[in-house]
Amino acid sequence: MTAFSQLETPAVLIDVDRIEANLRRAQDYADSHGLKLRPHIKTHKLPRFAKRAMELGAVGITVQKLGEAETMADAGITEIFLPYNIIGPAKLKRLRALADRVNISVTADSAETVDGLSSTFADSAKPLTVLVECDTGMGRCGVQTPETALALAHKISQSPGLLFGGLMTYPAAGQVEANQSWLAAAREKLTVAGLASPIISNGGTPDLWRAHEVTAATEHRPGTYIYMDRFQVGKGVGEWTDCALTVLATVVSRPTENRAIIDAGSKSLTSDTLGLQGFGLIENYPDAVITGLSEEHGTIDLSNCPIKPAIGEQLRIIPNHACVVSNLFDEVTLISGSEIIETVPVAARGRVD
Amino acid sequence: MTAFSQLETPAVLIDVDRIEANLRRAQDYADSHGLKLRPHIKTHKLPRFAKRAMELGAVGITVQKLGEAETMADAGITEIFLPYNIIGPAKLKRLRALADRVNISVTADSAETVDGLSSTFADSAKPLTVLVECDTGMGRCGVQTPETALALAHKISQSPGLLFGGLMTYPAAGQVEANQSWLAAAREKLTVAGLASPIISNGGTPDLWRAHEVTAATEHRPGTYIYMDRFQVGKGVGEWTDCALTVLATVVSRPTENRAIIDAGSKSLTSDTLGLQGFGLIENYPDAVITGLSEEHGTIDLSNCPIKPAIGEQLRIIPNHACVVSNLFDEVTLISGSEIIETVPVAARGRVD
Repeated sequence: MTAFSQLETPAVLIDVDRIEANLRRAQDYADSHGLKLRPHIKTHKLPRFAKRAMELGAVGITVQKLGEAETMADAGITEIFLPYNIIGPAKLKRLRALADRVNISVTADSAETVDGLSSTFADSAKPLTVLVECDTGMGRCGVQTPETALALAHKISQSPGLLFGGLMTYPAAGQVEANQSWLAAAREKLTVAGLASPIISNGGTPDLWRAHEVTAATEHRPGTYIYMDRFQVGKGVGEWTDCALTVLATVVSRPTENRAIIDAGSKSLTSDTLGLQGFGLIENYPDAVITGLSEEHGTIDLSNCPIKPAIGEQLRIIPNHACVVSNLFDEVTLISGSEIIETVPVAARGRVD
Repeated sequence: MTAFSQLETPAVLIDVDRIEANLRRAQDYADSHGLKLRPHIKTHKLPRFAKRAMELGAVGITVQKLGEAETMADAGITEIFLPYNIIGPAKLKRLRALADRVNISVTADSAETVDGLSSTFADSAKPLTVLVECDTGMGRCGVQTPETALALAHKISQSPGLLFGGLMTYPAAGQVEANQSWLAAAREKLTVAGLASPIISNGGTPDLWRAHEVTAATEHRPGTYIYMDRFQVGKGVGEWTDCALTVLATVVSRPTENRAIIDAGSKSLTSDTLGLQGFGLIENYPDAVITGLSEEHGTIDLSNCPIKPAIGEQLRIIPNHACVVSNLFDEVTLISGSEIIETVPVAARGRVD
């Protein structure tokens, strides 16, 4: 019998005490360095945690999809940053509707995106704030050079219905100096050109505690920091005792001496390895290795475990990547230590568009 | 403008003509070999396709979770096989409630599971049919030898409230001969012991067209065959033109000459590689490689593409693994060729327990 034996598995447990500590730690860090925090809600998708982060000092939230923005706006959050190229008539219409009720800003990395935004907001009384997305090393979206950042900033500032808001990057983990150099060079070009850049938005949990080294940035957008996970602990960003999200699973089979099968597979833990061996850390059985996942089965190698779990035993697993787990569960159970508080719906789960 | 330009992306398109052809092909194959078909609905999670398979001759459906069984029972399906160890009071109670309204059977691979089932059904007027899960090579759940299969079959047949139903395996792909040998040996032991084994249930799409070689089996449980996917085509199980599920995505960025970013990431395509390079095949751009996914971005290498997609262009992607995609979308859009039929909810999506 564990404290959670009344819960059906697989289930997601969220420790609210750890949430509070994680939010405070990051806000205190940001405050001490004069950085603003605009946390990414993709990790938890829960309005209550978004609001709590703002109560503690965050200047707004970051979302990745219009559907997430709509859910958060419905919950009463009014400062929303959507760092994505919003493209196509249906999505532009939704963006315009959102802008009528909350303060929403977006990014663009191409003339095509800017033109779509401008034609949507040209007749709006309230201009849309648009930041230029910069590829400072990640190799994903973003303009490729400070020169093209300046050119696109010019275009935004000259486009009807739009306001140039600054620069945004999601940097490559660990490349703090390169990120800083890129942003500083772009900021310099903007200054010389007489273009004010009120926001320079940096992001990511992997380099959260080095955010102050990116002096060109005015703010940081961490996401995973609220839950932490096996990947972040591996990178030294947090401790195991900071991990607020665990997947509760049950041992459903012990086919051999050294094999256990649990009822959490890729539909609970996801196939994300993030380069790690195994699919999560099992609390109380740190020497066990989750060697494989199919959709509804997790296969565990117990060879190195002096004590081995029995059929029916519940296990708590810290996943490799917490954000993707949140997207798989319709509801999560809030806990405080070993006490269950309540089970709540994941409001912005499955907002694919 | 494509035929689907009015759809917001990412979206899942399901070609019903290909569904019909895939269902018929498998049923015709099974009929011609005197095999029964008990298709797995985990791939689509849609009652309409489960019903259509049964109209074409399937003897019932297979599900992997109680929640899936409940959804299918609600939709009027009455022959349900749940090949899983059902453990713990809450789940056993749900199983008993299901058994009161549909014909449901389950599997067990341990005395612990059998004891739980027996104590739940001991006072039931209708005994629960339980098959022994056999590990014929997969290395997941299942008894390890034909001898232990016989012993557990004995235990089931002597347990109040239970009826021994036969054997079940999810075999390792490609190990057809080993699977056949294992099952034949176990069946022989059961026969010698005077234990009737009405069902010997084999499974999997990878070896679907070799199912008749497993002469010990009475039935087959394919899942992915209804949609097919990049993995199955790679294994030669189907052709590209059999693939019924595609993910519709939009190019949101073209940061460099040879890079495109789409709005489908791991939240749409999943991180499942199944050992393949890249995360899906892009129709019309077969030389493009989806090299990386983050949650809401897919990164595409266009180096080998003579023609390259433009910002705003919609792409159709055949995913590596269709089943896991179904679990990520609240709704899918049924199509016939280039014509949209309707958008329907994925009834059994997210049934984690």
